[in-house]
Amino acid sequence: MKLRVDLLPHGSYSDTVLVIDVLRATTTAVTYLERGAEALLLTASPDIALGLKWQPGLTDEAGDPLRDDRYLLGGERGGLAIPGFDFGNSPVEAAQQNFTGKTVIMNTTNGTGAAHIAAQSGSRVLLASLTNAHAAARRAKALALEEIAIVCAGTDERVGLEDVYAAGVIAEYLLALGELSVDDGARIALTLRRSAGNPLEALSSSVHGQTLERLGLGEDVRYAAQVSESTVVPVLSDLQDVEGALRFVAG
Amino acid sequence: MKLRVDLLPHGSYSDTVLVIDVLRATTTAVTYLERGAEALLLTASPDIALGLKWQPGLTDEAGDPLRDDRYLLGGERGGLAIPGFDFGNSPVEAAQQNFTGKTVIMNTTNGTGAAHIAAQSGSRVLLASLTNAHAAARRAKALALEEIAIVCAGTDERVGLEDVYAAGVIAEYLLALGELSVDDGARIALTLRRSAGNPLEALSSSVHGQTLERLGLGEDVRYAAQVSESTVVPVLSDLQDVEGALRFVAG
Repeated sequence: MKLRVDLLPHGSYSDTVLVIDVLRATTTAVTYLERGAEALLLTASPDIALGLKWQPGLTDEAGDPLRDDRYLLGGERGGLAIPGFDFGNSPVEAAQQNFTGKTVIMNTTNGTGAAHIAAQSGSRVLLASLTNAHAAARRAKALALEEIAIVCAGTDERVGLEDVYAAGVIAEYLLALGELSVDDGARIALTLRRSAGNPLEALSSSVHGQTLERLGLGEDVRYAAQVSESTVVPVLSDLQDVEGALRFVAG
Repeated sequence: MKLRVDLLPHGSYSDTVLVIDVLRATTTAVTYLERGAEALLLTASPDIALGLKWQPGLTDEAGDPLRDDRYLLGGERGGLAIPGFDFGNSPVEAAQQNFTGKTVIMNTTNGTGAAHIAAQSGSRVLLASLTNAHAAARRAKALALEEIAIVCAGTDERVGLEDVYAAGVIAEYLLALGELSVDDGARIALTLRRSAGNPLEALSSSVHGQTLERLGLGEDVRYAAQVSESTVVPVLSDLQDVEGALRFVAG
């Protein structure tokens, strides 16, 4: 079995792909499913997400469009909530809600884009974070035939230390589960995991961690630094019912 | 001053760029200039290089095309010499020759492409390797106004541990020369440099180092692992006289 770590999304994937956007999309995705969400729809754009918010052509007595109450919208641009969305991209906020029976429509700056790149070619696509690291590693190991690719989303096309660190944590779990031939990306991630301090130190020192801290979202960084607290792994569903959106369910 | 390390070439560059392809293009480039070459022409394709080999329209008495004896051709594809080229991309081979008065036309799988990406936007472009690491750092520091970007060429669009390690060596020198704000890529490179063993261990353990060893080119890996043996830094010249080729001279 081969292990490949892409420090940014690029190229194509032949087998099982773990997409990581620790700060914060994949951490939040895990939390939505933990808090009862039936499914996640990762859209290619905010507009696709907003288009799903309303029931097409229906209005209430005052003539206002009628909300489609199956859906809630969560997302961010530059760390901030998107106008018209119900939630930001905050795992702390998500952890305080109950999403039972709801589908959460997500659009974020980096994570949802990375998932779309992975889904173009990968035969199995999972979302991973530090919070579900062990479960994600076990699930990927069970699904993969020849190769596990860990794809780091990064931030605005720049490598994110937090994602590479998390890739190293998952790579360590995978190595404990059996023999793997690792590429240079995996070796870099493993080195970083072993040398960059504990998870909170690593996440707090990353450029994106510092940006979130400045935006008053430091609690999200601390939440995202928890390792293997969850056993939920979002898995790309075979059922893709909305164009331009990837449907993930708890695997 | 900012320091940015791109673990693969991407994006655009506003200021001073150091292009690294330790195994082997930039190491060999330094060696050509050390051994007397007047200039290097890094071409966008092997065909452009081969087109410069002959004097256009001229033949000898037997009707064979006449060689343009200003030029020598060096390059590789997949580690192997290109048919019609005079040299492979081997620093060991280059170190045994005298290139005085010659221009060496180079085309390689990754390094020349990375240099072309850097030259599209960078205002000053230098070639760096482990062999000229200290000189390259000092030169970049002297030239840069706001940002030094170290661009790792990688191998076939995959991150190369050898390039990231060398970026970490140069980043360490730069930090010793003055205060810098570093991005996550630089922090990853610095961590790797401090944790991945000595230069020869790092280069030998990289995927591309192992490929070269298998091809019988292990001497090149050992040559490329020498740190700061040379003070020659190839600098992109203001004079770009051949279309599709970047002219570098000793800086």
